[in-house]
Amino acid sequence: MVIVLKQDASKEQINHVVEVVRSLGARTHISRGEERTIIGVIGDKRNVQKEQLMALPGVENVISILQPYKLVSREFKHDDTIVRVNGVEIGGGTPVMIAGPCSVENERQIIESAWIVKNHGGQLLRGGAFKPRTNPYSFQGLGVEGLRLLQKAKEETGLPIVTEVMQAGDAELVAEYSDILQIGARNMQNYMLLKAVGRLDKPVLLKRGMSATLKEFLMSAEYIMSEGNNNVILCERGIRTFVDFTRNTLDLNIVPAIKKLSHLPIIVDPSHGTGRTDLVIPMGLAGLAAGADGLMVEIHPNPEKAWSDADQTLNPEQFAELMHKFKHFIEWQKSLYAEI
Amino acid sequence: MVIVLKQDASKEQINHVVEVVRSLGARTHISRGEERTIIGVIGDKRNVQKEQLMALPGVENVISILQPYKLVSREFKHDDTIVRVNGVEIGGGTPVMIAGPCSVENERQIIESAWIVKNHGGQLLRGGAFKPRTNPYSFQGLGVEGLRLLQKAKEETGLPIVTEVMQAGDAELVAEYSDILQIGARNMQNYMLLKAVGRLDKPVLLKRGMSATLKEFLMSAEYIMSEGNNNVILCERGIRTFVDFTRNTLDLNIVPAIKKLSHLPIIVDPSHGTGRTDLVIPMGLAGLAAGADGLMVEIHPNPEKAWSDADQTLNPEQFAELMHKFKHFIEWQKSLYAEI
Amino acid sequence: MVIVLKQDASKEQINHVVEVVRSLGARTHISRGEERTIIGVIGDKRNVQKEQLMALPGVENVISILQPYKLVSREFKHDDTIVRVNGVEIGGGTPVMIAGPCSVENERQIIESAWIVKNHGGQLLRGGAFKPRTNPYSFQGLGVEGLRLLQKAKEETGLPIVTEVMQAGDAELVAEYSDILQIGARNMQNYMLLKAVGRLDKPVLLKRGMSATLKEFLMSAEYIMSEGNNNVILCERGIRTFVDFTRNTLDLNIVPAIKKLSHLPIIVDPSHGTGRTDLVIPMGLAGLAAGADGLMVEIHPNPEKAWSDADQTLNPEQFAELMHKFKHFIEWQKSLYAEI
Amino acid sequence: MVIVLKQDASKEQINHVVEVVRSLGARTHISRGEERTIIGVIGDKRNVQKEQLMALPGVENVISILQPYKLVSREFKHDDTIVRVNGVEIGGGTPVMIAGPCSVENERQIIESAWIVKNHGGQLLRGGAFKPRTNPYSFQGLGVEGLRLLQKAKEETGLPIVTEVMQAGDAELVAEYSDILQIGARNMQNYMLLKAVGRLDKPVLLKRGMSATLKEFLMSAEYIMSEGNNNVILCERGIRTFVDFTRNTLDLNIVPAIKKLSHLPIIVDPSHGTGRTDLVIPMGLAGLAAGADGLMVEIHPNPEKAWSDADQTLNPEQFAELMHKFKHFIEWQKSLYAEI
Repeated sequence: MVIVLKQDASKEQINHVVEVVRSLGARTHISRGEERTIIGVIGDKRNVQKEQLMALPGVENVISILQPYKLVSREFKHDDTIVRVNGVEIGGGTPVMIAGPCSVENERQIIESAWIVKNHGGQLLRGGAFKPRTNPYSFQGLGVEGLRLLQKAKEETGLPIVTEVMQAGDAELVAEYSDILQIGARNMQNYMLLKAVGRLDKPVLLKRGMSATLKEFLMSAEYIMSEGNNNVILCERGIRTFVDFTRNTLDLNIVPAIKKLSHLPIIVDPSHGTGRTDLVIPMGLAGLAAGADGLMVEIHPNPEKAWSDADQTLNPEQFAELMHKFKHFIEWQKSLYAEI
Repeated sequence: MVIVLKQDASKEQINHVVEVVRSLGARTHISRGEERTIIGVIGDKRNVQKEQLMALPGVENVISILQPYKLVSREFKHDDTIVRVNGVEIGGGTPVMIAGPCSVENERQIIESAWIVKNHGGQLLRGGAFKPRTNPYSFQGLGVEGLRLLQKAKEETGLPIVTEVMQAGDAELVAEYSDILQIGARNMQNYMLLKAVGRLDKPVLLKRGMSATLKEFLMSAEYIMSEGNNNVILCERGIRTFVDFTRNTLDLNIVPAIKKLSHLPIIVDPSHGTGRTDLVIPMGLAGLAAGADGLMVEIHPNPEKAWSDADQTLNPEQFAELMHKFKHFIEWQKSLYAEI
Repeated sequence: MVIVLKQDASKEQINHVVEVVRSLGARTHISRGEERTIIGVIGDKRNVQKEQLMALPGVENVISILQPYKLVSREFKHDDTIVRVNGVEIGGGTPVMIAGPCSVENERQIIESAWIVKNHGGQLLRGGAFKPRTNPYSFQGLGVEGLRLLQKAKEETGLPIVTEVMQAGDAELVAEYSDILQIGARNMQNYMLLKAVGRLDKPVLLKRGMSATLKEFLMSAEYIMSEGNNNVILCERGIRTFVDFTRNTLDLNIVPAIKKLSHLPIIVDPSHGTGRTDLVIPMGLAGLAAGADGLMVEIHPNPEKAWSDADQTLNPEQFAELMHKFKHFIEWQKSLYAEI
Repeated sequence: MVIVLKQDASKEQINHVVEVVRSLGARTHISRGEERTIIGVIGDKRNVQKEQLMALPGVENVISILQPYKLVSREFKHDDTIVRVNGVEIGGGTPVMIAGPCSVENERQIIESAWIVKNHGGQLLRGGAFKPRTNPYSFQGLGVEGLRLLQKAKEETGLPIVTEVMQAGDAELVAEYSDILQIGARNMQNYMLLKAVGRLDKPVLLKRGMSATLKEFLMSAEYIMSEGNNNVILCERGIRTFVDFTRNTLDLNIVPAIKKLSHLPIIVDPSHGTGRTDLVIPMGLAGLAAGADGLMVEIHPNPEKAWSDADQTLNPEQFAELMHKFKHFIEWQKSLYAEI
C-alpha cells in the first residue's frame, strides 16, 4: 500500500499519518520525491483500511499494491482447479457443454431437452426451477416441482444438473436435487447466499454480475471459498455497457485475464451474453478461442413456445450446428497443442 | 406492442405471427408501409411476451409501447405518495435529511452520531448493523447487537431509524428494531427480499442498483408494492460508468425523470453516489435543486476512526455546513414557489 | 511514479528496471515489502513513459503519482481564471446564461431568438452554422451564411456570439465572426483542431467528449493552453452510459471535481446533457447548485419547427421560466455566501 | 416510423400531429388500442425528423422502424464487399494480418519491423507517422518523414501500407504514400475528415469510436460511401466501459452483428482493444472465431524501446506464435467449411 501525500502536506500531517499506520500494526517507509512525498505501508496490513487513510489530513491518494483476494489467486494455488461432477471434468483442458432450457416448463419439455443435449454430445443439463424475473407478474418458475422434473431428466439421461438457487434459505433444498448450484448474475453480491453455498459440499457456478469488475467477481468467489467450498466455476455472461445491439456485452477479455490471476475454471454463456440467437454460435466459438473451459447455452425443443428467453434460445437444429463446430474446435485445439 | 416484420417476410410468416398473437388472447392490426409491414398488438396482452414474438420467423423487431409497471406509475395514482414515519413526512414537499454513520460501531459512537444529527436539524438516523462488504475478511457489522444500539439511540434522541436488511429471513427481525427498512443497491434485484419486505407493514427505502435502468428500478419497487406495501421511498446512490474520479456516478437526472413517471418519493445519497467527502455538499445541494425529496449522508463523530467508508463520511463541522445550506435551500425553494 | 514488481521478480530483472530508469534520466528509490518490492521513480521524469516500463520483464504494474496536465491545474495557477467577452465575465462568481437555437436557420429565426435571449436577461447567443450530424443526409448547417446571420444578430442585440468550429482549416474564418469558439464533444480529441484554436486570440468553449475521463478532458484543455491561449471554458454536456431514459447522462459530479483540480471555468449544457425538454430546467438548476459558472441551453421561437434538436429545445415560455429561476437562484447564492 | 401518443392526448392534438406529418410530405395510418393510440408514418419520410415529432404536444414517443443507413447495408448490396490492395483481398473469406509498430521511429526500426511482418506471413504493414496523443507533450509522430520511411519499407518488402490521417487537409498527402488510409477511433465522427477520404480513390480503414454504437459506426462508414468511396474496412478496437482490467473492452459481439447488417469487411485490433500484450493472442484468435476478416496488431523489434504503446506491443517471438496459430486457425476454418 502506497500513501501519496499532497504537495503542501505539512510535517505534522506526515507524522500523523505515520502514527496512524503504526497504531494499526503496520510499518512505514518514507520516500521523498521532488514534487511529492510517498509513504509505503509494509508489514502486517490486516487492520489497515484504504478508506481510513484517505480520510487523513494531507493525504492525496492511497494506492493498493496487493490484491485483496487470496484463496482464488494463482499465487496461492498454482495449478488449475478441476471441478469433477459425475465423471465430467470442468477445467481439465477439454471444454464442456452445458445446455438446456431457460425454465423447466413441464415433464415432456425438460425430458425432450435433456435428450437433445445428450444426443448431440452435451455433458450437463441446465434448467431453471427458481427464476429471477424483472417483472413481478412474469412466470417465476415451477419451484420444487421443477427440481423434481430435473431429477427425473437426470435419471433418464444420466446428465448431471445445473440449476439456480436464489436465496440462502433454499441452498440445502436445491443442493439435494442438483449437481452444480448456480448463483445468478443479480445475486453475485448477495453475500448471505454466497456464504450459504460456501458451506455446502457441492460445486458452485458463479455468474459475473452485470456491472462487476474482475476484482469484485473474484472477491465473490473468495466469499464461497472462504467458507470451505473450493469447487467454484466462474461464468462470464455479459456486462452492461452503452451498447444496444446486444442485450448485454459479452466480455470475453475476462477469460484470459482470469486464467492469469486465478486457478478457477471459467465458462462462457453466449445466450445471456448477447441475447440474440444469431450471435450464440459465433460468440460461443470465440469464447472457446479465448480460452474458456466450457459453454453454457439455452436450448428448447421449440423456442417459439418457450415461456422465457425465447429470443436467445437455440432450436435443436441450431444446437446441432453448434455441437458440430464445438467438437471440431476441440479437435483443432488438440492438434494445435500437440504440435507445439 | 408493435411487431416490425422483415422486409422479405412472406405472407405465410405474417399469417403465422397473427395466429400466434391471437392464440395468446390478443388482437392484431396490420399496417403496410412501403418498406415494412408492422403489426400492432391490441387488446388483452397479459400472455404476450416480447421475447416469444421475437423468435418467430419473419419478425425483425418487437417494440413495447406500454411500460410494464403499474402500481408505481403516476398514471395509476396521480398524487404524490407521502411516507409518514414518526411524524416525519417524506415526499410531502419539504426535503428531509437522513444522516448517520456507515456502520454502528459501539454505543458511544451511535449515540454521539444521533445527537449530531438531531442537534443540527436532521430528521432520521441511518446506521448499518448488517453490512454488505465486497471483501469477506472485512468487518461485517454488529448484527442484532447493532440493531439494539440503534434502538437505544432512538430512545435517547427520538430520531426514527433507517437500517439495512440483507436477506428475506431477517426482514421481520430488522423490522422490529427500525422505522424504515433499507434495501441496498446490491440487493435491488434480490426478488425474494423484495417480496419479503413487501409483506411487512413498514416503509422501505429502495436503493437503485449500480447498473439499474429507470425501468428496472421501478420494477423492483413494483415487486414491493405488488405484495401490498405502498410505502416505498426510492434512493439514487450512483451508477457504474467509465468515470473514475468518483467512486460511482451520481445520476441526478433520474430525479426529475422519476417524478414524472411515478408518485413515489425519491431521495439522493451523495455519500455513496460520489465516494468523496469534498463532493458531498455540492452534489447534495444539486440533488435538492433537481427535485429530490431528501438526502441521505454518512457522518461520523470522527471519520478518521470510522470502521468503514471513512473517505466519504462528513465530520461534525462538515455536517453543520451541509445542514446550514440545506435549510437555507429549503427557505429559498419555498420563497420561489410562493412567488409563482 | 511507482513501479510494482512481480512477487517472483528476479534480482537481474530488478537491476534491469533500475538501469532502464537511469538511462532515461531519472533516479530510483527501492522499497522492499514482505510480499512485493516497489521502485519509486524520482527526479527528471520527462523521458520516462509508463507504457515502456510496463513492458519490462518482472514488472507487474506502474502507477503514476503526478497528473500529466500542468497549465490547466490549480497547482500551477491558484486563482480562478475569468474569461471576459464583451463585458461579460465567465468564471467571475456570478453564473452566466448562454442560449440560442441549435442551428441558424434563417435571418428571422436567429434575430427573433437573439431578442428572446436578450429580453429575458441571457448574456450570450449560441447558434450553429457548421453542424456535426451523425447522418450524412441531414441538414449540415448554413455555413458562412450562418456566420453572417449570427453577426447580424449581434449587431442588433449586442449579444456576443458562441458558435462551433469543426476543423482546423476553418478556425480563423469562424473566429472572425464569433466571440467564443466552440469545440464540440465529437472533436474534443481532434488534436489538430485544438492546436489551431490554441494559436488564436479568442476564447474557446471546450465540450467534454461523450466518453472522456476527467483527465482526458483536462488534457484537451492543456492542448489549447500549451499553444498560448489561456481563455478556455470547459463545458459538461453529458456522457455515454448504459442509461436510456436520457439521451446522455449529464455528469454534474465533474463540476465540483474540476473546480478542485483546475482554475478554468466550467459551464453545464442540460439540453444536450439530457436530450429532454422536461429535464432542462431542473438539471440546469442542479448544475448551478453543483457550482457551475453558467448554463448553455437550446431555445427556439417555435421548437416544433426547429430543423434540429427539437425535442431538447425550450420554447420562449419555458425559457422565461428558466430565467426566472436562474436569477432567483443567483440571488439566493449571493445571500448564502453573504451570510457565511 | 411509429408515433405513440400520450394516454390523455386530445383529439385536437392527434389531428395536429397528422397535419404536421402531412405537411412534411408523408402519410399517416392511425391505430387505436385500448390504452394508447399510435400513428404509423408511411410514404416519403425524407423530411420527417424524429426530434421534431417528439416536440409536438400529446406525443409520448417516436420510434424509428427503418435504419438511417443505406449504402453500407446488406439490404442495399447483398454480396460481401472485397477490398483489394496490391493483390491482397480483405473480406474475401480468408482473414488477413496487418501488423507493424505503433509509431514509425526511424528507418532501421520500420524496415526491421516490415521484414518481421513479411517473414512470418503478414500481408500488410501498419505504422503511424501522424500520431494522435492524449498528452500534448508526448511524441506526435515523424510526420511526412515517417510517410517516406513507410514507403521505403514497402519498396524493400512489397508490403502495402496502412497509416493514419488525422485531418481533412492531410488526406491527399497521406494517400500519396499509403495503400489504406486509417481513420482513428477519436476521429470516427470527424465528419470533415470522413468526407475528405470519401472523395479519394483509396481504401479506408475506419476504426470504431470508443463510445460508438453500431448505428453510429455504420453511419460514419455511410459518410465515406456517400462521397463515392466504396472501399471501406471497418475495425473494432475496443470500447469504453466500467471495466478496468483492460485498457478498453474489445467488443467482439459487433463482428457477427455487422456481418448481418452490412456487406463491408470488418477486422479486429486486439492490441488497442485490450492494451495488454498477454491478451493479444487469445483475443485475436477469438476475433477470428467470431468471424473477423482479419486482425491488426502492434509489433516492434524491441518493444522495451518502443516510443509508444510498449505495453500492448508484441515482440518478434510473440508475433511468431500469433502467426503460427493464425495460419493454423485458417486451415481449421477451411476444413470446417469444406465439410459443411
